[in-house]
Amino acid sequence: MSKLDLTAIRAKIDDVDTQIQTLITQRANLAKEVAQAKYAEEKQPNFYRPEREAEILRQVIQRNQGVLPDETLTLIFQEIMSACRAVQKPIVVAFLGPAGTYSQTAVFKHFGHSIQTIAAQTIEDVFHEVEIGNAEYGVVPIENSTEGGVNQTLDCFVKTTLKVCGEIDLPIHHCLLAMTQDRSSITRIYAHQQSFAQCRAWLNANMPSIERITVNSNAEAARRASNEIGTAAIAGETAAEIYHLHVLSAHIEDHVHNTTRFVVLGKQDIPATGQDKTSLYLSLPNKMGSLYHLLECFVKNAINMSKIESRPSRQTAWDYVLFVDIEGHIQDTTVSKAIQELQAQTAVVKHLGSYPRVLR
Amino acid sequence: MSKLDLTAIRAKIDDVDTQIQTLITQRANLAKEVAQAKYAEEKQPNFYRPEREAEILRQVIQRNQGVLPDETLTLIFQEIMSACRAVQKPIVVAFLGPAGTYSQTAVFKHFGHSIQTIAAQTIEDVFHEVEIGNAEYGVVPIENSTEGGVNQTLDCFVKTTLKVCGEIDLPIHHCLLAMTQDRSSITRIYAHQQSFAQCRAWLNANMPSIERITVNSNAEAARRASNEIGTAAIAGETAAEIYHLHVLSAHIEDHVHNTTRFVVLGKQDIPATGQDKTSLYLSLPNKMGSLYHLLECFVKNAINMSKIESRPSRQTAWDYVLFVDIEGHIQDTTVSKAIQELQAQTAVVKHLGSYPRVLR
Repeated sequence: MSKLDLTAIRAKIDDVDTQIQTLITQRANLAKEVAQAKYAEEKQPNFYRPEREAEILRQVIQRNQGVLPDETLTLIFQEIMSACRAVQKPIVVAFLGPAGTYSQTAVFKHFGHSIQTIAAQTIEDVFHEVEIGNAEYGVVPIENSTEGGVNQTLDCFVKTTLKVCGEIDLPIHHCLLAMTQDRSSITRIYAHQQSFAQCRAWLNANMPSIERITVNSNAEAARRASNEIGTAAIAGETAAEIYHLHVLSAHIEDHVHNTTRFVVLGKQDIPATGQDKTSLYLSLPNKMGSLYHLLECFVKNAINMSKIESRPSRQTAWDYVLFVDIEGHIQDTTVSKAIQELQAQTAVVKHLGSYPRVLR
Repeated sequence: MSKLDLTAIRAKIDDVDTQIQTLITQRANLAKEVAQAKYAEEKQPNFYRPEREAEILRQVIQRNQGVLPDETLTLIFQEIMSACRAVQKPIVVAFLGPAGTYSQTAVFKHFGHSIQTIAAQTIEDVFHEVEIGNAEYGVVPIENSTEGGVNQTLDCFVKTTLKVCGEIDLPIHHCLLAMTQDRSSITRIYAHQQSFAQCRAWLNANMPSIERITVNSNAEAARRASNEIGTAAIAGETAAEIYHLHVLSAHIEDHVHNTTRFVVLGKQDIPATGQDKTSLYLSLPNKMGSLYHLLECFVKNAINMSKIESRPSRQTAWDYVLFVDIEGHIQDTTVSKAIQELQAQTAVVKHLGSYPRVLR
């Protein structure tokens, strides 16, 4: 390629960049127009509209001609929307801190970088920051694709008045860490129960006869592995640095798509987009066949259930509460009909939120 | 605002988004054209062209009409360039791991997210990964705005044949961490020497009579604070989680703009952009006035020095080597003249690289 050709293509790219920038600026100005008009009508309008953002991202994917991957294009548009939202009003998002955790990554993935954040110390604190208004939104982990529900989050949902207004999927990776670099010298592995569960097949195949000891957290596992010769821990890469451990094996999780699902907490009801999910909290009466009859309400109305999770009620022994995710929006007639039927069967049916489904 | 108006503005935004996407796709196709032509000429062409990317970002800032902040626009364009680069050839970048560290943040800030990364365990390993070709580029910390040079990195530059082909600035924040939530019960603080230095004024104002003990790393400080009642540590937020410590005070660094500077390592010589920096490594002859005469070479040629850092030569006791950053590019006549004059004065003048200055 002659230098002249390259110069010509680069001039074209510069021209494209100028046009892109003009359009981004134009978009920010349109966002400002929306904001001014909204402020004229309402004192505290919502500028984060998950149903609208989900719609925009779906259109981006629909229009994609395949030169760039869908994820790359949605990342760019997420940042453009984030920038325009910040022109309207900078939003504050609380998450389970500290900085550098998977939760923070989930926040930026969903909201882009043009936001303010609060790193809360516990899941309860995330709920609290949103409830008292220090943050408009909160992001908490709710379940892992391999290990199941995050109990602190589920328990918080029993008391809160906050709504689920979105969901975020994030891939999660585990490592085997130890002081030694020689895997054959390991006689014991420490890990959180959920991490053992996420890496079971790998451990059975690669370290079948090694003792497995369950501890309270991955950090505790790493701490022990840094104190006891001949032991290893399952934890994320960050723990390796803090505890000066070697990464003996990376990505040892059994499912390539080992994913943690986060939910966005807020005070808004989100309008339907046509591709939605509804989260419910139900108390299960302690009598025979009660679960069957609950499920019947969904089946009869042809509603797909994407998740069911039970937790002790914490009120009466052996009483359970259920967390159920179904496809559809509370405004859909089938969903509202099923909920009416549920209410006839059980004392408590709490609508935790209807929100756009993430693209999987 | 009537619902009709809002619908009209949203339709305009959708139209703008469609145009933006068309242009981004067009840009990716142009990048592909460049790649095909380059492959026809060369077997292993370089697709990362820091001088070109710096130029594009400077144009973005120059064109900015102020609706959106410069940083927001450059972030968006960084991601667009990253996406187009990945269409040409996915590049691999090594950094000082693990994931979740400031180094990784620096990598994404400079290269965007459409890249592959290798998390190396030490600074030496980052150099090594690039030297043997596992990674095309490496990112290592080189100095902190408050605490000064990172010695491991400087020492690696003495032996390596790699070039500096870029620089990255990243703001850094410190916290006071402890088991207790009561700051008045603290009688001793642990920290790395550099962290104490970065928080000196805050400590003098807020904890004047508290004993300060220097330890080897912030992680070590946090570990001690998690074992000894009445002690605190200075460390980042991540350490709070790992060691189950409370954040007593956040952002305690003295300089709001406490920043760590990273450099990009590679094998390329980067052409001049008109706003460049040149890094040199010099041995300082052990005789009177030698530093003065070295500096004279810059002054005489009206060259601005932005950094000078000395390190023991590790060959003869009390022999020093100097790391010097100057404004300008090795292709500039003033710079090449100064370097010629330096060579007349001292045995070793190594050109570590000339590369685009970051926008500060």
